[in-house]
Amino acid sequence: MQLPYYIDLLGTLVFATSGALAASDKNVYKDIFGVTFTGFVTAVGGGTLRDMILGIRPVWVADGNYLLAITIGVLLAIVFKYYILKYRRTFFFFDTLGIALYTVVGVQKSLEFGVSPSAAIIMGMFSAVMGGVIRDTLINEIPLIFRKEIYATACLSGAAVFVLLKLFDVDDNINSLVSVLIIILIRTIAVKYKLALPKVNSK
Amino acid sequence: MQLPYYIDLLGTLVFATSGALAASDKNVYKDIFGVTFTGFVTAVGGGTLRDMILGIRPVWVADGNYLLAITIGVLLAIVFKYYILKYRRTFFFFDTLGIALYTVVGVQKSLEFGVSPSAAIIMGMFSAVMGGVIRDTLINEIPLIFRKEIYATACLSGAAVFVLLKLFDVDDNINSLVSVLIIILIRTIAVKYKLALPKVNSK
Amino acid sequence: MQLPYYIDLLGTLVFATSGALAASDKNVYKDIFGVTFTGFVTAVGGGTLRDMILGIRPVWVADGNYLLAITIGVLLAIVFKYYILKYRRTFFFFDTLGIALYTVVGVQKSLEFGVSPSAAIIMGMFSAVMGGVIRDTLINEIPLIFRKEIYATACLSGAAVFVLLKLFDVDDNINSLVSVLIIILIRTIAVKYKLALPKVNSK
Repeated sequence: MQLPYYIDLLGTLVFATSGALAASDKNVYKDIFGVTFTGFVTAVGGGTLRDMILGIRPVWVADGNYLLAITIGVLLAIVFKYYILKYRRTFFFFDTLGIALYTVVGVQKSLEFGVSPSAAIIMGMFSAVMGGVIRDTLINEIPLIFRKEIYATACLSGAAVFVLLKLFDVDDNINSLVSVLIIILIRTIAVKYKLALPKVNSK
Repeated sequence: MQLPYYIDLLGTLVFATSGALAASDKNVYKDIFGVTFTGFVTAVGGGTLRDMILGIRPVWVADGNYLLAITIGVLLAIVFKYYILKYRRTFFFFDTLGIALYTVVGVQKSLEFGVSPSAAIIMGMFSAVMGGVIRDTLINEIPLIFRKEIYATACLSGAAVFVLLKLFDVDDNINSLVSVLIIILIRTIAVKYKLALPKVNSK
Repeated sequence: MQLPYYIDLLGTLVFATSGALAASDKNVYKDIFGVTFTGFVTAVGGGTLRDMILGIRPVWVADGNYLLAITIGVLLAIVFKYYILKYRRTFFFFDTLGIALYTVVGVQKSLEFGVSPSAAIIMGMFSAVMGGVIRDTLINEIPLIFRKEIYATACLSGAAVFVLLKLFDVDDNINSLVSVLIIILIRTIAVKYKLALPKVNSK
């Protein structure tokens, strides 16, 4: 089926925009190279790490469309920066859509390549959040996944649902849709009601 | 032989505990996800990097027992935090045992996969310390290996001994035991007598 | 042809010197292990990342000459630190030569292993600058590629020229020479005339 391919490209574009925007906010990174490089790393970092662990070649290395999607994503960030930041809701929606799509693509790919179900859940979350972790490490910030309420945890939950429904032989397309919706739902509820995970008690 | 497998699992558990404890000390990381994620990265980071360089798939991807060991290690850190930190000697012992075991497992695996003896020494050290390096980079600290007296150097020494004894056809089990003991010995003596490596003169 | 092999070894040596010097300037890193480790990571980081993405084994793992080159590079940094820093021009020349050589070796290798032309340009730049990025991340600094005027961009330009001339079937040796010279030229002009890339406007 062709759908996941376009979903993957769309996710790549969205993450490139989000990475470029993050860099353009910080003085040292905001020349054209810094913004593009950060967009690139955010977009491909998570998937590249996943593929290196799986022992397969990352898609962007062979398929020029991914680099095209990143270029468009970065250009959108540069040209429409003002509008994107004004409509924060839109941006939040795209970021949430991005992590949901990447998670499900990541779990599916991991299971396909013989990863154990429990590790596949982690690999799905990795695909979604590690690009951002690498981005934040590069710009010397505490990674977002540690600061944001229920961000990576939403990915883990959606990935777990996917693995579970897969065990019950649910059709992959329906399963993908359900899992994506669950991630979006958990993330949206967490932000709306300011839910956070319990902290480990430090006596 | 099955022994190294259980040794590897034990090392994984110990490192997960040590990573989770490090995160639980810092305010931003101490929700349940942050603590678990940091424990996970500390436990598998070094071995995963080694395996990506060797071109083989990391063990935790296919074998659920490693994720189980990490879960137990993180839970121990959360539940027994107070006691573990109280008995710093015990913690020190487990950390030292952890790096010693990981180093020897890493050298052995590297030699098995055709790495040159000198590179295998480095790969052994990498297996032991890079999980901690990634952990420290994530939490924005100067990696421990740069701060701690004779830490990675103890691993390099033990790894070098293993390679040397291997050249003299010493039995692998005896060799492993000797190398592990040498790492523990060097590390313990360095801490006890506050030994440090000489600094490079900066005129 | 044997030339690229010695070029690669020379580049490795130069980068090891540059990494060791960077570490020896900072108090926490300047014991012998810290300086050597930083030199090592700077020298092999970019190529190792490239090879992990390509799915091939990094050269230093099997070929002891690379570790020898790094050892010599680090020793040069320790013994001749004073002279190297005094002759900053010489150091600048070697660093520029290093990134130029690494870029061209990286593009060539990527094309050879079936990477698309556009991705090969990025991989060439990665080979040259990612060792430095990892080094700077380890020592908790903002990576040089974000701070330095037209550094990675010079690599991208030279890599693009290589790919272009390759399409016109220009001989590999001539092509390598031309591309290396272009990188050195762009970098030198950028530094001499303090050229910088335009910044992304942040309203």
